[in-house]
Amino acid sequence: DYLSMNSSRCAACKYLRKRCPSECIFSPYFPPNNPQRFACVHRIYGASNIGRMLQQLPVYLRAEAADCLYYEAQCRIENPVYGCVGMISTLHQQIFSAQEQLAKVQAEIALINNAYTQQESSQFQQLDGLLSNLNNF
Amino acid sequence: DYLSMNSSRCAACKYLRKRCPSECIFSPYFPPNNPQRFACVHRIYGASNIGRMLQQLPVYLRAEAADCLYYEAQCRIENPVYGCVGMISTLHQQIFSAQEQLAKVQAEIALINNAYTQQESSQFQQLDGLLSNLNNF
Repeated sequence: DYLSMNSSRCAACKYLRKRCPSECIFSPYFPPNNPQRFACVHRIYGASNIGRMLQQLPVYLRAEAADCLYYEAQCRIENPVYGCVGMISTLHQQIFSAQEQLAKVQAEIALINNAYTQQESSQFQQLDGLLSNLNNF
Repeated sequence: DYLSMNSSRCAACKYLRKRCPSECIFSPYFPPNNPQRFACVHRIYGASNIGRMLQQLPVYLRAEAADCLYYEAQCRIENPVYGCVGMISTLHQQIFSAQEQLAKVQAEIALINNAYTQQESSQFQQLDGLLSNLNNF
């Protein structure tokens, strides 16, 4: 009946107000219970581009591709200028600052090692001096 | 003449085989000397989506947005499954391993400090022993 056909359509076919074919390219990746997911990728890429991009991939990679397209579309809706690239540059900055921190800490280790080595040798010199004074008695 | 009109069209209008209007939305960001740039974003987003996304932004942000859209489109062409998200997860892994390395190095510092402190106190104990032996003479 009409209602069950209606409720079995995927989110994409519902959004596009068309019949959902049995071999629908969208259906496995855009379930009817998440209409916002398709609305989001549709807004950025358009239905035909998403369909084509999925079609060009082997079936076993399509779910991950749909997830990534959704993630990228969300990024672009949240950040209409930089999209995902904004996140990439934030992560690059984090890596840069982590590397800087690491270099500082490694310099600190070298400094500590150096300081203790000098302190040790000066203690040995003091001990040497003490012993040679005792011998001279 | 025909040739000069032809060469003044932007890469988008050339690609779409249409006249390039004086207020063309693409023209400032898709110069005719880089046809590959428009072909790339066209393949992923489609001309009308790019036009709409640029149109929705204030003029001073459009150049950066066009650069980012181009970058993302390139990512998706190179990596049709993960696109930019592939790069984001690589960067997350790099940050994770840098943080791990940092934690190791900080533990190393604590160990060195600890070892030297113990060594120092045992040297002082030896020195104390030596001096009290001398006093007992």
